[in-house]
Amino acid sequence: MSIRIGILGYGNLGRGVESAIRQNPDMELKAVFTRRAPETLKIRTEGVGVHHVAEVPSFKDEIDVMILCGGSATDLPVQTPEYAEMFNVINSFDTHARIPEHFAAVDAAARKGGKIGIISVGWDPGMFSLNRMIATACLPEGSNYTFWGRGVSQGHSDAVRRISGVKDARQYTVPVEASVEQVRKGENPVFETRDMHTRECFVVAEEGADLARIEEEIKTMPNYFADYDTTVHFITEEEMKRDHAGLPHGGFVIRSGVTGFEKEHRQLIEYKLTLDSNPEFTGSILVAYARAAYKLSQEGQSGCRTVFDIAPAYLSPLSGEELRAHLL
Amino acid sequence: MSIRIGILGYGNLGRGVESAIRQNPDMELKAVFTRRAPETLKIRTEGVGVHHVAEVPSFKDEIDVMILCGGSATDLPVQTPEYAEMFNVINSFDTHARIPEHFAAVDAAARKGGKIGIISVGWDPGMFSLNRMIATACLPEGSNYTFWGRGVSQGHSDAVRRISGVKDARQYTVPVEASVEQVRKGENPVFETRDMHTRECFVVAEEGADLARIEEEIKTMPNYFADYDTTVHFITEEEMKRDHAGLPHGGFVIRSGVTGFEKEHRQLIEYKLTLDSNPEFTGSILVAYARAAYKLSQEGQSGCRTVFDIAPAYLSPLSGEELRAHLL
Repeated sequence: MSIRIGILGYGNLGRGVESAIRQNPDMELKAVFTRRAPETLKIRTEGVGVHHVAEVPSFKDEIDVMILCGGSATDLPVQTPEYAEMFNVINSFDTHARIPEHFAAVDAAARKGGKIGIISVGWDPGMFSLNRMIATACLPEGSNYTFWGRGVSQGHSDAVRRISGVKDARQYTVPVEASVEQVRKGENPVFETRDMHTRECFVVAEEGADLARIEEEIKTMPNYFADYDTTVHFITEEEMKRDHAGLPHGGFVIRSGVTGFEKEHRQLIEYKLTLDSNPEFTGSILVAYARAAYKLSQEGQSGCRTVFDIAPAYLSPLSGEELRAHLL
Repeated sequence: MSIRIGILGYGNLGRGVESAIRQNPDMELKAVFTRRAPETLKIRTEGVGVHHVAEVPSFKDEIDVMILCGGSATDLPVQTPEYAEMFNVINSFDTHARIPEHFAAVDAAARKGGKIGIISVGWDPGMFSLNRMIATACLPEGSNYTFWGRGVSQGHSDAVRRISGVKDARQYTVPVEASVEQVRKGENPVFETRDMHTRECFVVAEEGADLARIEEEIKTMPNYFADYDTTVHFITEEEMKRDHAGLPHGGFVIRSGVTGFEKEHRQLIEYKLTLDSNPEFTGSILVAYARAAYKLSQEGQSGCRTVFDIAPAYLSPLSGEELRAHLL
């Protein structure tokens, strides 16, 4: 019998999850839930229903794991504890500063319902966190560096789109190559924010808009751009469609440490992602952790977990014997 | 109270473990055991005794985790089940084909003794296995590629040293750069053995030895060299000492997969190690897993484990709260 998955929220990430489920023969998409009018939403999996979010509770016994694909700002902090009482849940909550309180809320709800909740699953937080953590445990004396890109930051793209006179925008985060090389050489540099990444914006302006003013507003925007070297390119709608339709991303985590009685040996661990599609990759990771949530729940476990708490074997459809024989 | 570690076997790996313990404040080296005459062995940690291996059983209550630093061919298959009845044990058993039977033997012994045994810990098997396994679970449709080097293979160096007329030898495994590039481009090539690595040997010959015969014996040696393109350099003892004293190594594991409804997006995961000292890095990983063995044992668990079975948080001295706040 396959693991029955529900998807709550059908944007880029929800579609990434739907697509990932099709690559895992032990999984089955059971239902998609939306806040929109269900009949307006066309999904890709035949024979699977789309339901209004108000119907979620009636699926309590038909879904093994609910994957929450909403946003971290307002959706996930409310939805995750709410549904963790009824379902095993997974989310990609990525507001780093609020993870401790979110963990506590989900943990309380999941324990109450006897369910498993796995939060902050994806690639950062997620795979990058896992690599930072394991590398730090293996090389206790050293420094961690996280570089993102080259890739589209949806949050920064949205921020540019909110500027008046902007019709559409795409923001790329770009690692500073010279800084990456310093780290790879084991120099353990200390960086300011602007040393590690630059930001590159492609903007479609409304006709007659003051381009100089838009550029100035972008470059001085606090939190998003003010601490970075930013370049702004004004392009046409056609160019936007032709050259910037995808959502590529990636980046790398480097642990640069030393070992030896005199700390004379440098040791470098690098984990690197090169992604044609950020939401599909995140969706694929969510699905692997949904398998883990199901297995943990079958064992009778409950409460909140993160990627740190889950033995890797739980992510795989293979048995312990198969894993040891073929992947160890 | 710190975790009390014993080291059994004091070669390169044993010294690597000793050095790693000093970088972990929650750990303490309790004793070193050797098959040699203990008084002939000088260790680096003051105040710690060196004992003959026959004395191991008398340390049953003084050591929390015994790290076995012998060889995979003959030492570990015998020692690990033997000591798993008395101690929590860790080893770096790397004979891939014999892992299933080794797992079964250690599992039976550890269960009988109520202890934890963690086998095949290091970087391959170990960190590379972990990355192959997790990446395969996250990208179920794709291929895995493992490249080793550039680095010293001690097994291949030993094999060359056994040839008559050879005084000393060092063998470097070198990835074929063009093949690496094909993989990084997502081309998912199918390789023959010789497409992925070349082998480079530095040999000090005895005076008057037949160099052509030595070179021929190396290049045609079955299993070790016959399937590879091998180059042989004859050098002086001084050059060997000056240029080849270290044990650098490294390599990378790449998962190249696809996602999307039409499988139209390429996704690449790469895990890369660049190591000045192979035995010190392996020692550092063994020590992190020794911490995990200790924690699992404190929870009352017993039996054999591999890196697949251990939640990453067990490797760290930090609490769940600290990990979530700082590394997630």
